[in-house]
Amino acid sequence: MSNNNNILIAQGGGPTNVINQSLVGIIASEKKNNSRIFGSVNGVNGIINNKFKILNKISNKNLQLIKNTPGAALGSTRDKPDANYCKEIYHILKKKKISKFYYIGGNDSSDSLRIISKFSSEMNYNLQCIHVPKTIDNDLVFNDHTPGFGSAAKYVAQLFSGINYDVKSLPGVYIGVVMGRHAGYLTAASSLLRNKASDGPHLIFIPEFPFNLETFKNNIKKIFKNYGRCVVAVSEGIQNKQKELFTETIKKSNEYDAHGNIQLSGSGILGDFLANEIKSSLKISRVRSDTLGYSQRSFLGSASEVDQKEAFDIGCAAVKFSKKLRKSFSVGIEERKIFTKRYEVKFIVNKLDDIAGKTKVMHHSFYDQKKFNVTNKFLNYCKPLIGKNFPHTSSII
Amino acid sequence: MSNNNNILIAQGGGPTNVINQSLVGIIASEKKNNSRIFGSVNGVNGIINNKFKILNKISNKNLQLIKNTPGAALGSTRDKPDANYCKEIYHILKKKKISKFYYIGGNDSSDSLRIISKFSSEMNYNLQCIHVPKTIDNDLVFNDHTPGFGSAAKYVAQLFSGINYDVKSLPGVYIGVVMGRHAGYLTAASSLLRNKASDGPHLIFIPEFPFNLETFKNNIKKIFKNYGRCVVAVSEGIQNKQKELFTETIKKSNEYDAHGNIQLSGSGILGDFLANEIKSSLKISRVRSDTLGYSQRSFLGSASEVDQKEAFDIGCAAVKFSKKLRKSFSVGIEERKIFTKRYEVKFIVNKLDDIAGKTKVMHHSFYDQKKFNVTNKFLNYCKPLIGKNFPHTSSII
Repeated sequence: MSNNNNILIAQGGGPTNVINQSLVGIIASEKKNNSRIFGSVNGVNGIINNKFKILNKISNKNLQLIKNTPGAALGSTRDKPDANYCKEIYHILKKKKISKFYYIGGNDSSDSLRIISKFSSEMNYNLQCIHVPKTIDNDLVFNDHTPGFGSAAKYVAQLFSGINYDVKSLPGVYIGVVMGRHAGYLTAASSLLRNKASDGPHLIFIPEFPFNLETFKNNIKKIFKNYGRCVVAVSEGIQNKQKELFTETIKKSNEYDAHGNIQLSGSGILGDFLANEIKSSLKISRVRSDTLGYSQRSFLGSASEVDQKEAFDIGCAAVKFSKKLRKSFSVGIEERKIFTKRYEVKFIVNKLDDIAGKTKVMHHSFYDQKKFNVTNKFLNYCKPLIGKNFPHTSSII
Repeated sequence: MSNNNNILIAQGGGPTNVINQSLVGIIASEKKNNSRIFGSVNGVNGIINNKFKILNKISNKNLQLIKNTPGAALGSTRDKPDANYCKEIYHILKKKKISKFYYIGGNDSSDSLRIISKFSSEMNYNLQCIHVPKTIDNDLVFNDHTPGFGSAAKYVAQLFSGINYDVKSLPGVYIGVVMGRHAGYLTAASSLLRNKASDGPHLIFIPEFPFNLETFKNNIKKIFKNYGRCVVAVSEGIQNKQKELFTETIKKSNEYDAHGNIQLSGSGILGDFLANEIKSSLKISRVRSDTLGYSQRSFLGSASEVDQKEAFDIGCAAVKFSKKLRKSFSVGIEERKIFTKRYEVKFIVNKLDDIAGKTKVMHHSFYDQKKFNVTNKFLNYCKPLIGKNFPHTSSII
């Protein structure tokens, strides 16, 4: 353990609605330790480019505002450092006499920390590398859930609840494409504010289970016949049986059609393709698709109050654990075994080796493969995470 | 004036976040008149298909929930009745001894009312046709603004505020395509939650002023050079000099490329095209586009409290005016002359003839054609409409 109190914080990867809560949690706790708190601008990129801020002098009033602001207040990066990049980071941190490096990020960030920590040990330099998780995808292993997910889940749930009533007003088929390359959690969250059995989303398609276009159409047909409308949530990461991204399949088939002249691209491709398929095959006239955008992770004012508190608290917990443990680690949220008892979180310590580069997907018990929908177990698991700050709803028809 | 108290309410056109506030406002006020309140399901379509609900028996508790629910609680319709359709409506209303018909809708709905009202007069039947405005486009003439707009504007403002911080975290160019075929109000609302001169959206393009691709690119280049990032709000209805929808221009040029083999379509086309142009011409690597979807009018939980109150109050005002006037009319919000004094609304009566089928576009004094941005006058006009229920924000970098 180093004797000095220079510590560094950085933020990496796609920002979330509450990533700054964790930042402020760490700052507030490290201030009590009388640490000199550096922040690097744009994650690890700011370290090698010597872009640092002193965070001690930010006023408490401003910290309160920063807490509630989406995006990464220190800036973020998509840099995925290799061994040499990590070595460089290590040398700079050593030169700045940094004793603790907090990196708020997803599993890529934890992997960088793992490598940097290893270097430091080998060089006999006492550097604690501390991973503070964030991701809207909720795909970190050994974590019940991840700060950032609750707010994104709330946004998606609010959006689909509104869409449910919109499509009830003007009946048709609605397809909403939700973020999530590998894990279906965020798409599954579209279900969280349903009130009645007839409420949408009526069908949910996630990357964990093979996507079949015919099954997709047949199920929409069935629902539409039943309710006169159908709301569908589709993950951007849906894959066919061969584990090929369905969006890639579409692009390929369209390239062939045009004899290579046109390459379809862009954000709307999956939703547009599926909507056209429904229109032409099922002869339903009103078919709409939306591709949910960056607002899923950044919409101002839809943060879950539960997520906000946990993101702040996990930052504080990281500081607490760091004093006790004096080694590198990833702070986490203990996995619940039962979802029906009173909701509470317990912060735990995970090894960087156990977290780094791994991806958690939806548990099979959370998804009903026959109904193409979430199970009650998922609802029990997920509902507490989005808090309670949204209107209750009703309709006449 | 008829001696009976049978009244009818219907909702038409694209629903909004507060269209049910107006519905409940009318129900609450007409209950005090001891009216027998019918609701037709799916607007005028429910009238000719004899789909009616008695609204008196809805509990107050349920009315409170309905008020806060997006979408049209009675269902809506896209039917645009011609003269014969209107005649049929008139006959059914006469048969049901309806003395007042409240239609909550946009200018199409007011046009239907205009025709129905004319028929009734000609047939010497005392039917009051009362138009209660709603539209997220804010394009009704003789109205300062329209219920529904404030909430949609708030959603768009919250979304762009979040995007501003997201793009600040991971610098690049972001293009958000906003609803609005003819009027740029909703796109302009993307500016409402900016704090600093460097905050996005940095550029705003609306249908009222001709869109030029080169100018678009040059301005993004300039902003990007200045701030290292650029957030752009583009209306879906942008037109070239020849008043042709720019999306149509894109479709055409792509059809030619593919020798007629492929017809581009779908929701993402405008944003995707513009993003690709920026990527290839300006050599900026991180360029993203989102096409904002139906959530603009239906997102649960982002309604403006000001808009909610006004939508409810305008329903009550419609009932009050109907007793005093005993003729057909459109209830409205008086146009403010000065936007800097204390914000308050005054409900007025407009003639159906003056409202029906007309479209209001952005006032030229609201837009700076050189800066491709809104003026302070627009900000003063629009800010009060979105209320105050959103977090204040700040950043470190």
